[in-house]
Amino acid sequence: MGTRTLIRGGLVVTAAEETHADVLVEDGRIAALAAHGTEAAAAWTADRVIDAREKYVIPGGVDAHTHMELPFGGTFASDSFETGTRAAAWGGTTTIVDFAVQTQGRSLRSGLDAWYAKADGKCAIDYAFHMILSDVNERTLKEMDLLVEEGITSFKLFMAYPGVFYSDDGQILRAMQRASANGGLVMMHAENGLAIDVLVEQALQRGETDPRFHGEVRKALLEAEATHRAIQLARVADAPLYVVHVSAEEAVAELTAARDQGLPVFGETCPQYLFLSADNLAEPGFEGAKYVCSTPLRPREHQAALWRGLRTDDLQVVSTDHCPFCFKGQKELGRGDFSKIPNGLPGVENRMDLLHQAVVDGHLTRRRWIEIACATPARMFGLYPKKGTIAPGADADIVVYDPHTEQTISAATHHMSVDYSAYEGKTVTGQVETVLSRGEVVIDRRTYTGRAGHGVYTPRSTCQYLN
Amino acid sequence: MGTRTLIRGGLVVTAAEETHADVLVEDGRIAALAAHGTEAAAAWTADRVIDAREKYVIPGGVDAHTHMELPFGGTFASDSFETGTRAAAWGGTTTIVDFAVQTQGRSLRSGLDAWYAKADGKCAIDYAFHMILSDVNERTLKEMDLLVEEGITSFKLFMAYPGVFYSDDGQILRAMQRASANGGLVMMHAENGLAIDVLVEQALQRGETDPRFHGEVRKALLEAEATHRAIQLARVADAPLYVVHVSAEEAVAELTAARDQGLPVFGETCPQYLFLSADNLAEPGFEGAKYVCSTPLRPREHQAALWRGLRTDDLQVVSTDHCPFCFKGQKELGRGDFSKIPNGLPGVENRMDLLHQAVVDGHLTRRRWIEIACATPARMFGLYPKKGTIAPGADADIVVYDPHTEQTISAATHHMSVDYSAYEGKTVTGQVETVLSRGEVVIDRRTYTGRAGHGVYTPRSTCQYLN
Amino acid sequence: MGTRTLIRGGLVVTAAEETHADVLVEDGRIAALAAHGTEAAAAWTADRVIDAREKYVIPGGVDAHTHMELPFGGTFASDSFETGTRAAAWGGTTTIVDFAVQTQGRSLRSGLDAWYAKADGKCAIDYAFHMILSDVNERTLKEMDLLVEEGITSFKLFMAYPGVFYSDDGQILRAMQRASANGGLVMMHAENGLAIDVLVEQALQRGETDPRFHGEVRKALLEAEATHRAIQLARVADAPLYVVHVSAEEAVAELTAARDQGLPVFGETCPQYLFLSADNLAEPGFEGAKYVCSTPLRPREHQAALWRGLRTDDLQVVSTDHCPFCFKGQKELGRGDFSKIPNGLPGVENRMDLLHQAVVDGHLTRRRWIEIACATPARMFGLYPKKGTIAPGADADIVVYDPHTEQTISAATHHMSVDYSAYEGKTVTGQVETVLSRGEVVIDRRTYTGRAGHGVYTPRSTCQYLN
Amino acid sequence: MGTRTLIRGGLVVTAAEETHADVLVEDGRIAALAAHGTEAAAAWTADRVIDAREKYVIPGGVDAHTHMELPFGGTFASDSFETGTRAAAWGGTTTIVDFAVQTQGRSLRSGLDAWYAKADGKCAIDYAFHMILSDVNERTLKEMDLLVEEGITSFKLFMAYPGVFYSDDGQILRAMQRASANGGLVMMHAENGLAIDVLVEQALQRGETDPRFHGEVRKALLEAEATHRAIQLARVADAPLYVVHVSAEEAVAELTAARDQGLPVFGETCPQYLFLSADNLAEPGFEGAKYVCSTPLRPREHQAALWRGLRTDDLQVVSTDHCPFCFKGQKELGRGDFSKIPNGLPGVENRMDLLHQAVVDGHLTRRRWIEIACATPARMFGLYPKKGTIAPGADADIVVYDPHTEQTISAATHHMSVDYSAYEGKTVTGQVETVLSRGEVVIDRRTYTGRAGHGVYTPRSTCQYLN
Repeated sequence: MGTRTLIRGGLVVTAAEETHADVLVEDGRIAALAAHGTEAAAAWTADRVIDAREKYVIPGGVDAHTHMELPFGGTFASDSFETGTRAAAWGGTTTIVDFAVQTQGRSLRSGLDAWYAKADGKCAIDYAFHMILSDVNERTLKEMDLLVEEGITSFKLFMAYPGVFYSDDGQILRAMQRASANGGLVMMHAENGLAIDVLVEQALQRGETDPRFHGEVRKALLEAEATHRAIQLARVADAPLYVVHVSAEEAVAELTAARDQGLPVFGETCPQYLFLSADNLAEPGFEGAKYVCSTPLRPREHQAALWRGLRTDDLQVVSTDHCPFCFKGQKELGRGDFSKIPNGLPGVENRMDLLHQAVVDGHLTRRRWIEIACATPARMFGLYPKKGTIAPGADADIVVYDPHTEQTISAATHHMSVDYSAYEGKTVTGQVETVLSRGEVVIDRRTYTGRAGHGVYTPRSTCQYLN
Repeated sequence: MGTRTLIRGGLVVTAAEETHADVLVEDGRIAALAAHGTEAAAAWTADRVIDAREKYVIPGGVDAHTHMELPFGGTFASDSFETGTRAAAWGGTTTIVDFAVQTQGRSLRSGLDAWYAKADGKCAIDYAFHMILSDVNERTLKEMDLLVEEGITSFKLFMAYPGVFYSDDGQILRAMQRASANGGLVMMHAENGLAIDVLVEQALQRGETDPRFHGEVRKALLEAEATHRAIQLARVADAPLYVVHVSAEEAVAELTAARDQGLPVFGETCPQYLFLSADNLAEPGFEGAKYVCSTPLRPREHQAALWRGLRTDDLQVVSTDHCPFCFKGQKELGRGDFSKIPNGLPGVENRMDLLHQAVVDGHLTRRRWIEIACATPARMFGLYPKKGTIAPGADADIVVYDPHTEQTISAATHHMSVDYSAYEGKTVTGQVETVLSRGEVVIDRRTYTGRAGHGVYTPRSTCQYLN
Repeated sequence: MGTRTLIRGGLVVTAAEETHADVLVEDGRIAALAAHGTEAAAAWTADRVIDAREKYVIPGGVDAHTHMELPFGGTFASDSFETGTRAAAWGGTTTIVDFAVQTQGRSLRSGLDAWYAKADGKCAIDYAFHMILSDVNERTLKEMDLLVEEGITSFKLFMAYPGVFYSDDGQILRAMQRASANGGLVMMHAENGLAIDVLVEQALQRGETDPRFHGEVRKALLEAEATHRAIQLARVADAPLYVVHVSAEEAVAELTAARDQGLPVFGETCPQYLFLSADNLAEPGFEGAKYVCSTPLRPREHQAALWRGLRTDDLQVVSTDHCPFCFKGQKELGRGDFSKIPNGLPGVENRMDLLHQAVVDGHLTRRRWIEIACATPARMFGLYPKKGTIAPGADADIVVYDPHTEQTISAATHHMSVDYSAYEGKTVTGQVETVLSRGEVVIDRRTYTGRAGHGVYTPRSTCQYLN
Repeated sequence: MGTRTLIRGGLVVTAAEETHADVLVEDGRIAALAAHGTEAAAAWTADRVIDAREKYVIPGGVDAHTHMELPFGGTFASDSFETGTRAAAWGGTTTIVDFAVQTQGRSLRSGLDAWYAKADGKCAIDYAFHMILSDVNERTLKEMDLLVEEGITSFKLFMAYPGVFYSDDGQILRAMQRASANGGLVMMHAENGLAIDVLVEQALQRGETDPRFHGEVRKALLEAEATHRAIQLARVADAPLYVVHVSAEEAVAELTAARDQGLPVFGETCPQYLFLSADNLAEPGFEGAKYVCSTPLRPREHQAALWRGLRTDDLQVVSTDHCPFCFKGQKELGRGDFSKIPNGLPGVENRMDLLHQAVVDGHLTRRRWIEIACATPARMFGLYPKKGTIAPGADADIVVYDPHTEQTISAATHHMSVDYSAYEGKTVTGQVETVLSRGEVVIDRRTYTGRAGHGVYTPRSTCQYLN
């Protein structure tokens, strides 16, 4: 008989239900749930009993968009898989899906192997990979089939960054056709990069070098245009589409229109677009550089459309696009030229708390909180029901969440390896108390009890939203 | 210690999850679920064990729209609460929400009391009531508040049937304002009845008396118009809205547009609109009368929009609008004048099977089947999580469903008290095997073991879709 | 040989062309146009030569919506046909289409005859009539056919004012069907009056009695709803539709959507909606009463949608809805109860100048100015090409317009019989200099030279927009 | 005193008016119009009198899209400026705007000069030029300014044909920005050529080589996508946009949506999209090659959207895209590989007649016929009012059109230098009888009386639709 853990007396919140239930864990998996106070529950014994009274018992978060150690603009994202996944655990996230990168001119395989190597033995929580296609050609199209079989079932393409990650419309169409055939899901960075680069060049020529111009040249219309185009190409290819980091109201409108027609089109947004805005990019003294990411932060008015999209299910997932660069030495590379600021924000530790704050603020129900942060990302990327829910048979990735405690977000107290917080000083209600990863306690009443190497690589099945 | 029942080895399907789990029932409620094969499951004993291997274990159906014994056009719907709820049980439905009717000029109270009396001691399964407002005035508006407190939390209004149930736009607005204040949900029969009655009169004058003209005069445009109008009035009143028996593509489009704006607007359709069409109304020899209901069956092309709406969640619920009239003696009242045909179809027994067939046909996933037929109607009308799901703490309203057996629908074998079936001769895959109502077996391997009076009146809380 | 008048050297502006041309008038009609400076022009002689150098030569305005001497709320509009048409001439308008009113319970004939009598021998310019249907029934439907033959080819219905002018949807449908058959055009006052009256009653109960509440209860949504409904009823009847005094952005959107589908749906707005706003209704000291009309003035933000609609041809006509009530003794009837303020504004004299100001402001081109104020109203109501253009064969209704002079609008200087101006103190660029009505000079360099009785009743053909 | 010509007794039809008027021509220009039968008209004498009784007197056609002698796919369009403009005259067209082509790597100047040379002294009617930008770079952007000053005020870009005419989105944005500054109008071939070329390659690999596959790979969705993208880029550049040869219903929808927002976006379609369809492409025995053009002919269902777009003014112009290739020796280059078929159809001679047939068929009014074929193209491209109307001061480009005669279109009788007709055997009602070009009779009662070199180059002002 293996180890048994019993979580007693909490309110179990999943995407579907809110139940006062005791949760029994056997050998790293959820064995049973029983209504609190029933004979069935009373009969249970366990090696370890966690008292969850007055707490929520929720599935561990699934962050489907992280970039640990990403090389970008001559530097690397400052979180390693070790520091990044530890911070994730602190924040109540128990699975990340990171992006392996194909180097242009090389095989997908070699890119993927490099990412396997980076993560192997380092992670505090479970992890999986998407693959970035930097170079769509006959050879890499064939490799896509092999990767799907191996559990890498999603592929990111870029309509931005010409000369780096950019694929043209012909390449995109070919990759989508391949995904349509092999069950893969194309993820799209949807910005018209060719047009944006013209505007960048013109802005710099006019002497507009401050971080706020990053937001101005990457126009909402050009995000919406690319979103529309990606949708049409997906229709031609008869393929599904997942648009990453949607930030513009007009882009949400494109997704909404497509979904009204019944097209398998999905959208992700990120906490930074929900809680921050172009005002941050305009902070004086180069402080705006902390908020430079692409798609960019938008004027505050766009937030309402994102919240509405999350409520109407025109946006399905909130991921972080966690890609931290230190202000000193990294963000500073772009002083005098906003186009040289490394693109990315830290956030993997803050997502579950910020979204709980959205519950407190009335933007989301509790169940929708779990749905967009746990259940849907797991379903979307073939990890369900192993991940993303609390149900008999699922992995015991469980968070005991205290909905009452207040905390103030700060670089001084966070666990990500980066010298600033994008939410510095923001007070939120709610805090992760205890975290189980496959039945093991990795955060125990706000003490880290995990270890590098506990987390394992998790191959994925294909997108379950297409069933 | 009370009675324990254990359902072993089935695939538990809810709106949210598909789990191979054993389900333990204590004292009429679901006490616990355990992954099949775990120690926790193995340890359970019970008074009665139901073998569900190779079967689905699903929540009992919730049919939110029935009219038992409804007086209409000088006759009465042919199913009593006794025959109708028994047939419901046979069809895997364990809760109905029927419509109590206010007689014009009398109080809501007296109408409601009449319906309590009709149902009391007769029902095989649990039941609740909506209230039809035939006469919106200062007195009935005040009564609405009392009814909400009593568990009658939804109120149906008619934009059709002038002189009978019809409310004008001023009355509708007042009722919506009241519902906005007291938490009630307005349900709307959305057809422009004033315009339709002109077209009815003109058709009859032209000698167009056959049943198919019923469909032609009740134009899709006039359903869509009324749907649009109801939505706008709800916006003015700041109230939610539930549109019953949506049948026209153009009406779905109105709901879709409203929902894209984030408005709390909901839509129900019925199996007859999904599986039947205007072709049935045109069957020769007055056979078309069997299919006369309002909103009417539409040309076949509308079905695709309804299926799409169910997939995109622009329609949320499938109810039956069960309102049977015998062909002989009842439907025949309208020979020579389609406007005298009693409006309504039988269907309470067929819903769960027809929607399972939609799963087989690829229109719906299994989870969506349960969502539209069990979970959402329960949430929409304040019965969740008591009804509509399989979760610790819920009522043990459970169906063991055999997904493999084929059956042929026929009046010769159905249990509804009506002399024809709208689906006569249709073969479907899947059949209800065993049904529990609050832990009691009412259908046992296709033998009726229930009794009139087992079913109890169930007061409802307010619409949970507004949280 | 009759009288010849020659207008030399002006810029002839019509809806279609801008031409430096001399205009030759023979016997009250335009005989010829010749390019200024040609031999053909040089050869002309005339009894009277008008020097139009530096001036525009434009068609006389056609105001398709006036209410002279209208009985409303126990009083009468303060302009008689004599004073009102004289003021129109001063303002460059040479044709009005006024509304004859059917008294409920009486025939169209008797209403029309009353209006013929009121106008006969009084008018300074030509006039025609629409007919208001207050009571749609078998008898009045038949009368519609006779009126169309007589040259009364348009019929106004009201979705507002229950108990007074209100028609229900069945009546509206019948009238539209009749118009579809006899070539008539239904004009619609599109506001949901049943809902509005509920809001009026509730506002008064809350003590909200000031004029500004007139604007708040007559919600933009309820104008848009009625507009949508009227369009759908017109589709059912296969009839064209002309919506009067469109003021809400949402109503423009309904018209736009209908027109995109190719439906014969038309919209009129008025200068008050383009130049005034809800701010005027909120002027202190009961001053707001001067601006009470229905549809009401809207918040300023709606103006942009109206201008855009005029540019995109989703609105086709600008009329005045001229319906003046003196502040003293008339508007004052509603002190303490906004619902008792007579609805209406003076404006027949100001329209051409205000719209020229819109040209100066860049909202409209010169040609579009003439189109919406002269040519389209003439075409819409069957007066073209007799009225509304400057072309060989047309009536010589011509205005010599000075585009450079500035004037200040004021009750002190206007010629309408009303004690205030809705545009008091507004300075505009441009002024009517000389006006010909069928070749007779009625304003001569800003002296009135016309006479009551010069203007004649002008029967109309059917709407030319349907060819 | 110069030559005077008098056209007596016809119905003068312009975009704006239908007038029974005599037209007096002095020295190549229209001097005057007089109502038929007036003293003014009766007084006129002339050197030449043309009897137009029972005939229409209309402005000569303006065909804004022709490709005389265009080099394409290794061959040349088969009509020279001499044969092509003569055929145009036969068909009632008195002005063409042809496309001068920049050779990649060379200047706009050299391309334009080549086209001046080709046309000089050859043309039967007046002509002007657009410029095709094959290579957008700093140098050519500067040249655009000079060309606008010279009267070349419109510039065509291609989103199709990678490696030949294709511009990427960055180049398009730059060209639009320049046009925004210098008053030029960007004309767009809107098809996603990168995606289409993938589909072409795949079709050929599957052995799909017949002409009908030309239509299948150039998907309507990819025309609509490119149209949407061009509109968004124009918004970013704050520039107007004219989309050439719109053929897909979905593309019309994009234009409609843009215009509803008030954007300065315009669309052209061509007779082949209105009268022919994908059925022609599927004609057996390689006959389909005769109908290969891009955008391709669409399934017949698209025609309704085009007619509706013309009626609702969401499409403004009908040009021919005249670009003839003989079946023998030219179209045959693509036997066995549809992608090698030269793209283009003959049509310059047929446009006015086909559109008159649309009047006969009830698709268009007479005035709209003239508007889309004469007045709007002239306004759009800065030729108005010199061309496109019959008004004092305009060039005397006039067609006497017999609306009653029937004719059968055939290569046996047409005057274009091409060995087939796209409309072979089609009978239409109406025929050009007499044509004046700047006052000279070039077709005299169906005899050609013109000469090469009569037609002169006509510099253009900027687009008048932006006033």
